[in-house]
Amino acid sequence: MKGGNGDTSYAKNSLVQKKVISLTKPIIEDAITNLYCNNFPASLCIADLGCSSGPNTFFAVLEVVTTVDKVGKKMGRQLPEIQVFLNDLPGNDFNTIFKSLPKFQKDLQKTMGAGAESCFVTGVPGSFYGRLFPSKSLHFVHSSYSLQWLSQVPRGLENKGNIYMASSSPPSVLKAYYEQFQSDFSMFLRCRSEELLGGGTMVLTFLGRRSEDPSSKECCYIWELLAVALNDMVSEGLIDEEKMDSFNIPQYTPSPAEVKCEVEKEGSFTINRLEVSEVNWNAYHGEFCPSDAHKDGGYNVAKLMRAVAEPLLVSHFGDGIIEEVFCRYKKIVADRMSREKTEFVNVTVSMTKRG
Amino acid sequence: MKGGNGDTSYAKNSLVQKKVISLTKPIIEDAITNLYCNNFPASLCIADLGCSSGPNTFFAVLEVVTTVDKVGKKMGRQLPEIQVFLNDLPGNDFNTIFKSLPKFQKDLQKTMGAGAESCFVTGVPGSFYGRLFPSKSLHFVHSSYSLQWLSQVPRGLENKGNIYMASSSPPSVLKAYYEQFQSDFSMFLRCRSEELLGGGTMVLTFLGRRSEDPSSKECCYIWELLAVALNDMVSEGLIDEEKMDSFNIPQYTPSPAEVKCEVEKEGSFTINRLEVSEVNWNAYHGEFCPSDAHKDGGYNVAKLMRAVAEPLLVSHFGDGIIEEVFCRYKKIVADRMSREKTEFVNVTVSMTKRG
Repeated sequence: MKGGNGDTSYAKNSLVQKKVISLTKPIIEDAITNLYCNNFPASLCIADLGCSSGPNTFFAVLEVVTTVDKVGKKMGRQLPEIQVFLNDLPGNDFNTIFKSLPKFQKDLQKTMGAGAESCFVTGVPGSFYGRLFPSKSLHFVHSSYSLQWLSQVPRGLENKGNIYMASSSPPSVLKAYYEQFQSDFSMFLRCRSEELLGGGTMVLTFLGRRSEDPSSKECCYIWELLAVALNDMVSEGLIDEEKMDSFNIPQYTPSPAEVKCEVEKEGSFTINRLEVSEVNWNAYHGEFCPSDAHKDGGYNVAKLMRAVAEPLLVSHFGDGIIEEVFCRYKKIVADRMSREKTEFVNVTVSMTKRG
Repeated sequence: MKGGNGDTSYAKNSLVQKKVISLTKPIIEDAITNLYCNNFPASLCIADLGCSSGPNTFFAVLEVVTTVDKVGKKMGRQLPEIQVFLNDLPGNDFNTIFKSLPKFQKDLQKTMGAGAESCFVTGVPGSFYGRLFPSKSLHFVHSSYSLQWLSQVPRGLENKGNIYMASSSPPSVLKAYYEQFQSDFSMFLRCRSEELLGGGTMVLTFLGRRSEDPSSKECCYIWELLAVALNDMVSEGLIDEEKMDSFNIPQYTPSPAEVKCEVEKEGSFTINRLEVSEVNWNAYHGEFCPSDAHKDGGYNVAKLMRAVAEPLLVSHFGDGIIEEVFCRYKKIVADRMSREKTEFVNVTVSMTKRG
């Protein structure tokens, strides 16, 4: 993700991710209700994994904390003290998160009143594909739009002309991506199963797909269009062909069945819900547009994807090509959006740690 | 403290603070031994309050964690999982701390072997003059060279020509500073008494004084010399006199008796040890000097004080005067150091939460 608060930063271009968090709110409510029914403690430890840095960081926490408050009141319980652990990689912009903590505390006060003072926020730097917390220390884990990111690009890919799984990718590429996902997600589950208390729950949302075909258009198309822009620049000599051939996105967008399969293999969790939802590529689709520029869907989607992908592109190609790539990408995306239904697919799973 | 990693940053100019942490190691060992004797848990929560950003951040943690390891081995216990909470104000440079976490983990591995993987580091933004953690969640609290910083400059000071308590300060100034210290430190104790488990311990080191006179030279002289530099610039018209008169340092350097008095008034803690030590103003005094510049004690002390005080000065006077102030300060300090014994006094208290 691109740090800071600038016009092309993740913080300023993450409305799609915010909508996804809102979509999953009923599932979070369910999970918290289960927790309350399951020997609810006086002090609750909650982790948001892959919190990133921007308005969504505290948006997700606010959803979870106010849900605890709301469900608790409905059930006649006193609000517990809540310790919130915000996790992301050590290079994440935690300073920006921490500086906006006083504002979050004010927002919380407005929503919850006095209970807000019992919410303690901490930052946890590290990869969620390893241990982050002591054993049996967490009650609730939330993660949204993070777990589709792999720990690394699968090794040894031969994926000429593509930058992700695509219909033209050889089977070895699809296999390598799937194996990386299995290895990463099973490691994630193993670590969390040690850290969660019995009866603790997780709500995880992946950018994913409905289809069982991993090169399905519903998940791969948005990257294929970026590959079109890059390949155009290769053919014009603006990007080195070898550079292009060695660039691949470290992501895997799983199907519900693939998610379920890993959870069952690991064996520590019971799945409560497994659901699929969609959100338009253009976050402003059918919404109030803050400016004329935002009426341009191609512009919005290009900015969203730039906020996510710019650091990956810069570290591989250098920063000289960035403006040109996203200028071309914007036009390509706008053209396709005018002719096709373009949606991200979200796979959400809610599960409880066996006691 | 001045952030970043530059030549005048706190990170590059905090050797005195490091020496102080080393000095208090036997007291930390004692406190950890007490903890082991007191129903030692499988998972240990440790907080370092006022961790700042620089080499000392992890130096203090390393001292505490390796002490847990050493004492545990001596007593034939298995190393617990350790959750380390690093606290400082939300404006502290946590990004720099978190980016150096992988290096810390390597250092820990070298010292401790496999146990290093069971140490989980988190950051906690907020003032330690308020609640930072859930009730009864901590086993050990460490703080070094932070608690002499007040939550604010005492209100209504009439302290003309001075920037801190000084021999020429009127009694009302000394009283206002002392009352601010009492109010802040008692709030600190009240918060920690809620957060610590019964039997939990705290080791706190203040920049302090031996004398019962709060305007004693041993604690005030270093600021008086900075006032000399500022007053010289006032008399030359380089600094506005009113600006100078309204500038005061939000610090209080307590005596052992004053620390003891607040702990006893609060009532939740038993004092185990209360000790005073000294450290030379010049961190390189009697040590290997990394460069010729470091042989100049005035240079070292001016840099130390600049790393600590620059942000306070800039926010009051603007940044135009900084180079000139510290250039003058360096000369004044060098002159006095050549003629007098110049030491900081450290007051360390170790206390246990009543069960």
